[in-house]
Amino acid sequence: MAKIPTPASDAATPPAGGPGPARRDLTDAPLIAAAHGRTPSRRPVWFMRQAGRSLPEYRRVREGIGMLESCFTPDLACEITLQPVRRHDVDAAVLFSDIVVPLKAAGVDLDIVAGRGPVMAEAVRTRAGVDALPRLLAEQVGPVAETIRLLVGELGRVPLVGFAGAPFTLASYLVEGGPSRNHEHTKALMYGEPDTWHALMGLLTDNTVTFLRAQIAAGVDAVQLFDSWAGALSLADYREYVKPHSERVFAEVAGAGIPRIHFGVGTGELLAEMADAGADVVGVDWRVPLDDAARRIGGGQAVQGNLDPAVLFADAPTVRRKAVEVIDAGERAVRAGAASHIFNLGHGVLPDTDPDMLTRLVEWVHEY
Amino acid sequence: MAKIPTPASDAATPPAGGPGPARRDLTDAPLIAAAHGRTPSRRPVWFMRQAGRSLPEYRRVREGIGMLESCFTPDLACEITLQPVRRHDVDAAVLFSDIVVPLKAAGVDLDIVAGRGPVMAEAVRTRAGVDALPRLLAEQVGPVAETIRLLVGELGRVPLVGFAGAPFTLASYLVEGGPSRNHEHTKALMYGEPDTWHALMGLLTDNTVTFLRAQIAAGVDAVQLFDSWAGALSLADYREYVKPHSERVFAEVAGAGIPRIHFGVGTGELLAEMADAGADVVGVDWRVPLDDAARRIGGGQAVQGNLDPAVLFADAPTVRRKAVEVIDAGERAVRAGAASHIFNLGHGVLPDTDPDMLTRLVEWVHEY
Repeated sequence: MAKIPTPASDAATPPAGGPGPARRDLTDAPLIAAAHGRTPSRRPVWFMRQAGRSLPEYRRVREGIGMLESCFTPDLACEITLQPVRRHDVDAAVLFSDIVVPLKAAGVDLDIVAGRGPVMAEAVRTRAGVDALPRLLAEQVGPVAETIRLLVGELGRVPLVGFAGAPFTLASYLVEGGPSRNHEHTKALMYGEPDTWHALMGLLTDNTVTFLRAQIAAGVDAVQLFDSWAGALSLADYREYVKPHSERVFAEVAGAGIPRIHFGVGTGELLAEMADAGADVVGVDWRVPLDDAARRIGGGQAVQGNLDPAVLFADAPTVRRKAVEVIDAGERAVRAGAASHIFNLGHGVLPDTDPDMLTRLVEWVHEY
Repeated sequence: MAKIPTPASDAATPPAGGPGPARRDLTDAPLIAAAHGRTPSRRPVWFMRQAGRSLPEYRRVREGIGMLESCFTPDLACEITLQPVRRHDVDAAVLFSDIVVPLKAAGVDLDIVAGRGPVMAEAVRTRAGVDALPRLLAEQVGPVAETIRLLVGELGRVPLVGFAGAPFTLASYLVEGGPSRNHEHTKALMYGEPDTWHALMGLLTDNTVTFLRAQIAAGVDAVQLFDSWAGALSLADYREYVKPHSERVFAEVAGAGIPRIHFGVGTGELLAEMADAGADVVGVDWRVPLDDAARRIGGGQAVQGNLDPAVLFADAPTVRRKAVEVIDAGERAVRAGAASHIFNLGHGVLPDTDPDMLTRLVEWVHEY
């Protein structure tokens, strides 16, 4: 079912730092057409984390520059975002950023530690800690908006996907104080102090909306909400403690009329709810075949995915064969009611991936 | 559907180091009764990784002694296995060991590195590497058999659960050279060189069977096959590359007539296949409610699980409430066709868990 873009006043506010450019009319770009349920001129393909460590030119420009510093340096973030577009002929650029960027911009004391991930100076586990968290102002992400304006000027007909971490995933980083395998403090807070939990999620939802609206005002053509850790939750807990907040994020950026993508890893049990939270496109990891995913979602939305990023470490014929399996499952997904299929990996590009294999994969997807 | 234990010649071979004791008749022990589909005298409960870092008495006896050394020191491994039984009134002891113990015993050069896990001196990624892997002889796990004989003498009426890592999980450690989040080299080998893959899995299956038969001969009352990483696979890949091997493990220890438990994390998509591989009991993580799990499995087998170990970090009323939810789901599972419910966590006890909370949890499960 096609969704008709409608102009929205909430996305018309220019970000701090000057008015954004008028949004490019990319109605016919394959990614945008597919996301809106129309037939694309070719099968769209892009990769989560396509801008990053798999590319030697990325490692070169990042030398001696911290991750967060890179995200807040428009020239550099623009260059890094463009690198995979030049190389791979992908159907979208994805903004080079990190899910903790809006936290950092708002003033939370954190750093991204190489080999570990985002680490907070202080874990947030009490009501007082939640109440002390800062509210994000659009002007605090001015450098991100500036990066987007630069990109819009460079990208020609290639759409730009903006993104944000979902409230649950951000909450886990704040409550655990860093990356966590088991999310034990997050869950203890969620179950034991639901009022504090929902206050935390409410604030993170506000900040996420502010961040996405700033990206939209600056010119992104689609947004993806990454709920990286949602797969750690049962369906009942996702419904009670998480979904209402992610749903509000999607509702508050709906007016822009641009495609909204929702993705998490290990979310086979949650797909119907993640779709129902208001996404136009549901990202699926490699554990669930796309046609199964379409049946769980119930039709009407596009599916995105889901080649296992580990497959790219095999030989070329194997990669091609597994990619064809994904494309075939994507076609069955459309027959099962999905609005369309956007080819992607089932998770981000792994750092040691051979970038030439990614280039060939894009060719195969486009030729098939 | 009750499964009737039958005597088996393959388990009657005494392990190296002397004949094992006659197996204790624990027909009426709650765990054994439930696993065989009979009504237990009380709801059985035990915890994966109940012997370990959550207990101060464990940290005391392990001081200055490496993990592998502990596993191969019968007096110490026996003491560690007994500690949680003394403390918590659980319905089973679980052998203190590690899934890489049979690899180490066979002569693979590896160590368990604190904070990281098992690390191999050399990753195995070629046919030559696979062909050079050693075959396990029962006498090489003599210290484990001796630990079990000591435990059988100490445990009275409490059953002892033996265990082994499943072939896929062991293969991942060998191919990656250590713990891995993405299993990229494992999958590359699996997809790219299926003959080498199946040769590797065949050898690991043989070694796992040898290891479990040695445990059975020494007197364990049930065995659990841990496929910790199976949840990283799609259903189709699990069926093609993994299930036939785990199925052979279960078939080759079936003759002993003791309950066989099959468990992995994040295996919601795989439950029916993991049950079909030949287990009497299917372990379920916290992502799938037990009654859903019973429907996926199709009935006739017991379900084990599945309180989220992170819940134990919440306050006591919350832990109790969530435990009751699991018990209620377990009762619905039985109505949906499961042979019975064995209470457990949905994964191993987390190291920082308050052991008193575990003790109280056992009381609540028994009282309910």
